[in-house]
Amino acid sequence: MRIAAKVEYSGKFFSGSQYQAGVRTVQSELEKALSLYLRVPTKASFSGRTDRGVHASGQIVHFDVEQDELDLWRFCWAMNGILPNDVSITSVKVVDDNFHARFTARKREYVYRILNRPQRSALLKETHYFVYRPLDVELMKASTAVLLGSHDFVGFRSTNADKTSSICDVSRAELLNLGEGRLEFWIAANHFVYNMVRIIVGTLVEIGLGKRAPESLAEALNAGDRNLAGPTAPSWGLTLNSVEYPEAYAIFELDS
Amino acid sequence: MRIAAKVEYSGKFFSGSQYQAGVRTVQSELEKALSLYLRVPTKASFSGRTDRGVHASGQIVHFDVEQDELDLWRFCWAMNGILPNDVSITSVKVVDDNFHARFTARKREYVYRILNRPQRSALLKETHYFVYRPLDVELMKASTAVLLGSHDFVGFRSTNADKTSSICDVSRAELLNLGEGRLEFWIAANHFVYNMVRIIVGTLVEIGLGKRAPESLAEALNAGDRNLAGPTAPSWGLTLNSVEYPEAYAIFELDS
Repeated sequence: MRIAAKVEYSGKFFSGSQYQAGVRTVQSELEKALSLYLRVPTKASFSGRTDRGVHASGQIVHFDVEQDELDLWRFCWAMNGILPNDVSITSVKVVDDNFHARFTARKREYVYRILNRPQRSALLKETHYFVYRPLDVELMKASTAVLLGSHDFVGFRSTNADKTSSICDVSRAELLNLGEGRLEFWIAANHFVYNMVRIIVGTLVEIGLGKRAPESLAEALNAGDRNLAGPTAPSWGLTLNSVEYPEAYAIFELDS
Repeated sequence: MRIAAKVEYSGKFFSGSQYQAGVRTVQSELEKALSLYLRVPTKASFSGRTDRGVHASGQIVHFDVEQDELDLWRFCWAMNGILPNDVSITSVKVVDDNFHARFTARKREYVYRILNRPQRSALLKETHYFVYRPLDVELMKASTAVLLGSHDFVGFRSTNADKTSSICDVSRAELLNLGEGRLEFWIAANHFVYNMVRIIVGTLVEIGLGKRAPESLAEALNAGDRNLAGPTAPSWGLTLNSVEYPEAYAIFELDS
């Protein structure tokens, strides 16, 4: 039977989510633990890759087990005993065989965290991009509106990008000011191109610093030219927050 | 002249805040950096000690410099260049010579973070005490009221405690439910006895688990017997949030 799992990880000591020979990845740690517990080699499919250094609080993966029944709570608990402490399974659910973590997904949501204050933080350094020059947050907020809707994000894709479509339908693009210099940029879309969130954030930060005009975000979007967008913001500010599936899967109500 | 500094640190790799020979402490790192930048051996006085593993977002320290003038922003920035990345100075201010980080303080505020959900977290493990059995949060909330006001907390002091007064005037004791299993216990008082917050939290968690009656917190408080209170909750859930001084010092408006 097929099982979907919600997975959390800190990206700091991982070379990204997807398997690569010779380096530590979330997929390899997960498959190692699954194979150990289930006693057969087991592969895990992710909703999408996250880069080296990027975190996840709600990555979704699926895998198949030979058993027809499984004590899900016990399984989840045991897996968290086997897995290293920077990756954990927060819940699991049996899904039908048509479910695919990547292909069934209809929306992904990311959050990018920024710390904007004069001095660096000892406590937030692992999860926040530190910007010490003052940002015009209202200007940044106003600039995010152009991202909403369906656009070609080819200009917000790193040159080593994959060859999938660069048309993304953005359903949320919101900058929150949590106070004490803490900013969160939330973005949800059906699909993201390589480094898209980090390039958008890099562009927004340049707008906030007054280095570029607010309209330049729309211009870069319309021109489809990577050179017109800002730099790629650092990986450690980014967290994959959640992945949404059709209601039939009720995947957000993962129990155990 | 005398300078007050607001200091942030992650307790993970420190053997507490106060100097001890042969181990890594916040005080020794701070004094090393100060002495290097100021070119004379410089001692720092803390508002109070925090234990091994305990974090701080608003620890206050003071120290004296020979200079009559100092570019505070530059000083702060330089110090953060010298200090290791798990401790930082968030702001500094010149204070008069009567100011003392410990003796002038009139209130300290701590926050203790708990994660209450079935499975452990890869992202919150450094700052949250993980409790996997369900807690009755409403019962815990209702139990905190007895802490308010002036009480003798001798029953909430570890046996190796110092000999200062155990009378503490508690001005805030509040349990917040942030959702997704995240709880924060906020407590402010003029003074705290050794391990007081962690023993209160250990007692509250036992109440939430149904292991002890809600009244037992008041009973332990009235009896003044350490054996009647709960266990000491782990250090890494605790953060010293802020220290309050008389308004004349306006220490919360530390700039730079």
